[in-house]
Amino acid sequence: KRRRGQELLGRSRRPSAVSSPVAADKAGNEMFMFASEPDRKLVRVQDLTPEKADQLIWLRARVHTSRAKGKQCFLVLRQQQFNVQALVAVGDRASKQMVKFAANITKESIVDVEAAVRKVEQKIESCSQQDVELHVERIFVISQAEARLPLQLEDAVRPDGEGEEVRTEKGGGCRPRLQLLETTTSQAVFRLQSGVCQLFRDTLTKKGFVEIQTPKIISAASEGGANVFTVSYFKTSAYLAQSPQLYKQMCICADFDKVFCVGPVFRAEDSNTHRHLTEFVGLDIEMAFNYHYHEVIESITDTMVQIFKGLRDNFQTEIQTVNKQFPSEPFKFLEPTLRLEYTEGVAMLREAGVEMGDEDDLSTPNEKLLGRLVKEKYDTDFYVLDKYPLAVRPFYTMPDPHNPKYSNSYDMFMRGEEILSGAQRVHDAQLLTERAQHHQIDLEKIKSYIDSFRYGAPPHAGGGIGLERVCMLYLGLHNVRQTSMFPRDPKRLTP
Amino acid sequence: KRRRGQELLGRSRRPSAVSSPVAADKAGNEMFMFASEPDRKLVRVQDLTPEKADQLIWLRARVHTSRAKGKQCFLVLRQQQFNVQALVAVGDRASKQMVKFAANITKESIVDVEAAVRKVEQKIESCSQQDVELHVERIFVISQAEARLPLQLEDAVRPDGEGEEVRTEKGGGCRPRLQLLETTTSQAVFRLQSGVCQLFRDTLTKKGFVEIQTPKIISAASEGGANVFTVSYFKTSAYLAQSPQLYKQMCICADFDKVFCVGPVFRAEDSNTHRHLTEFVGLDIEMAFNYHYHEVIESITDTMVQIFKGLRDNFQTEIQTVNKQFPSEPFKFLEPTLRLEYTEGVAMLREAGVEMGDEDDLSTPNEKLLGRLVKEKYDTDFYVLDKYPLAVRPFYTMPDPHNPKYSNSYDMFMRGEEILSGAQRVHDAQLLTERAQHHQIDLEKIKSYIDSFRYGAPPHAGGGIGLERVCMLYLGLHNVRQTSMFPRDPKRLTP
Repeated sequence: KRRRGQELLGRSRRPSAVSSPVAADKAGNEMFMFASEPDRKLVRVQDLTPEKADQLIWLRARVHTSRAKGKQCFLVLRQQQFNVQALVAVGDRASKQMVKFAANITKESIVDVEAAVRKVEQKIESCSQQDVELHVERIFVISQAEARLPLQLEDAVRPDGEGEEVRTEKGGGCRPRLQLLETTTSQAVFRLQSGVCQLFRDTLTKKGFVEIQTPKIISAASEGGANVFTVSYFKTSAYLAQSPQLYKQMCICADFDKVFCVGPVFRAEDSNTHRHLTEFVGLDIEMAFNYHYHEVIESITDTMVQIFKGLRDNFQTEIQTVNKQFPSEPFKFLEPTLRLEYTEGVAMLREAGVEMGDEDDLSTPNEKLLGRLVKEKYDTDFYVLDKYPLAVRPFYTMPDPHNPKYSNSYDMFMRGEEILSGAQRVHDAQLLTERAQHHQIDLEKIKSYIDSFRYGAPPHAGGGIGLERVCMLYLGLHNVRQTSMFPRDPKRLTP
Repeated sequence: KRRRGQELLGRSRRPSAVSSPVAADKAGNEMFMFASEPDRKLVRVQDLTPEKADQLIWLRARVHTSRAKGKQCFLVLRQQQFNVQALVAVGDRASKQMVKFAANITKESIVDVEAAVRKVEQKIESCSQQDVELHVERIFVISQAEARLPLQLEDAVRPDGEGEEVRTEKGGGCRPRLQLLETTTSQAVFRLQSGVCQLFRDTLTKKGFVEIQTPKIISAASEGGANVFTVSYFKTSAYLAQSPQLYKQMCICADFDKVFCVGPVFRAEDSNTHRHLTEFVGLDIEMAFNYHYHEVIESITDTMVQIFKGLRDNFQTEIQTVNKQFPSEPFKFLEPTLRLEYTEGVAMLREAGVEMGDEDDLSTPNEKLLGRLVKEKYDTDFYVLDKYPLAVRPFYTMPDPHNPKYSNSYDMFMRGEEILSGAQRVHDAQLLTERAQHHQIDLEKIKSYIDSFRYGAPPHAGGGIGLERVCMLYLGLHNVRQTSMFPRDPKRLTP
């Protein structure tokens, strides 16, 4: 076995943090640009199991905690959501100076250690690797953290009903957010989020959908100009798309048949709630159907069911990790998905004492209440509310052919909160013009939208899903900022 | 067999385009909102093969062309890139009025037809389904196109070396673009593009990368403020992200280890060339490595190779379709990917007569020339140029530890055009500060970027790929507007 520590140390740009003499092949600060590759085969923390007992391994990890006590220094070494205990002790393997060197390594620094894996008598409850510990023979600092951290990482994983709001606002700059992302909880949340996107796309691809890319800078505000961000565009002005809907529909008119897209959606709403962001990720679907828009509802609900199943079956570790800090009931769903008509929902609410008119929209508290009533009656956290009153939906919504007071539109709910709003779209230019006039919309402003339907358009329906809301509600979290890596709201633009 | 034409026609809102009496169960304009579902089992045009001969089938398609001649009307019915000939002829099956009705259906209208599939004696060269034709028994208009189209679709698929520039600019509104998307060529291009995204993500997911979502509205222009779009953000100003790089790097600092993202990237450059867009789709990668940034180059090049193989093996129909209109040589690549050092590239150029200094950047014509030289010498359309002069790269680029004139940075090329620019990033706050000062960058403006690296950062590298360029160059097209559904450039904001 070659011992290359000396050579590596020689290439270090920064002097060792401690000046005590440590054998250079045993410990030191290593250069951050490797001119040649040391022959270390790095193992992963999660692979440190009793099967590896008595092997000598190399590991790269962060110093999570460090506790020196006489001739010993206990480190907890962390890799994402996994960690292991490591011991540097004066003896055959380490000198007194090496223990001192190890004890002085700042928390969050990244180190390479060579160590023997040893089984332990008593489980180490505080680590993910409970059955083994590492007896360190060599230790090198790969990247040294500054001593004072804006946020103590142990604080960030404390169970906390209030979400992470208070904590992220403590420090300045981007470090607090960054540290928050390092927590085991965040690692799990965003791995699960990555899974939601993948399951969404894979399911739709299997169903014959084509992924499209839609522009975010647009020339006209699609729904009249409210709640839209303005962009300076060379010598003119443009807007940020509030939805990819027009573009999805154009693809349907261009015979793409079934399309989806995943991308940012911008809303200039001054809403400061637990569930609103000014920029979020939209999972959007649009689909031509043959004879009934329920063909589309079925495609969407089946896609959601495949997502729920995929998460349940493949992301149990992540779900459990999040639950440790933020306990919640497992997410329940039915197969096929429960579909209630709006009138049924209103009847359930009235039975529970709510007073509302047939064509009134649901308030947010009533949506939540209805979610609880549906859960009690049908034992599901996911359902579709179909056939909304025409009066409370946008002008492009297709009226119900059987009852002009209602419409071929629907919302979908998870744990009583809306995650998708969708509808059959009016695909006939004449009817669309009538509906726009009824809503007193300036026809000039939506001319190109209406014109899209003048040259033959198949009947179609679709909807848009908020990614951050799906993750929040699936995990039973209470703030959409917990499921957005870098949330944007009226008061937050950084990091 | 139930005959529901009458009932359906009864629900039509618009009177038949022709007033001649046609049996209502034989032909008519059908309502665009289906109150109940007719029991038609629709088949796909691509499935109309001799095996279906003599079967009576239902089909929904667009009227691509229509030619009436005495007692017959020949239609070509289109579904995406597939089409079939259909005949309506006076006889047992159709009345004179029905033929007249069919002859009057405007091109691009969407129809449902019931027809018998018949084998033909002579191949129908003009259609994708060459061995069969349809003998129509009933025909209903599902969506009627207006008579005058801004662009003749047959014109749009003519072989044309100039790209689609001239043609898209002809008409007004969004219809010309929309029609262009309907062409068989566009259908193929965008199906292939969807494939590129899927192959990119699937390959990286298999390699252990996590997909992340990065914000597009940012508070500060990352590279000093040039070429950045400004957004009005409530009472303040913000910018559109020119790259997700800072956010990818923050995820690496937060121990996500390997990340990728797919999303819009905004460049306020007033460049009006065949390869520049103001908004394009970035396929971005960032990855912590152990000891050498070539680990990252290998991950990226292998990902590209998997994309090329996936396209070659699973998108041959699409490639052939595009080649019919825009002929090009098949895309060639090596495995493993060719990696040349910058000095080698410069030597090749000098040998070909180019005069340039060691530390000069490559001009676009020289990149193209080098691409041709590499193709001649190595028979590949894809290669990496590694170790660019430090002076021509951004401040965050890691210098080469062996030679301070060069850097650990690279570009990747397809058919002599750059598709990716990447580098090992400086992950040490002190060195990053020095490099920024050397570039005379205001440290205050990049403080939070530098601070990201103060608390331990693993060595890492990455790069960003332009989706539209990859598709353009893979297919041997000559304008990036052909591989963007809704292109954005300094002069184009619509549709």
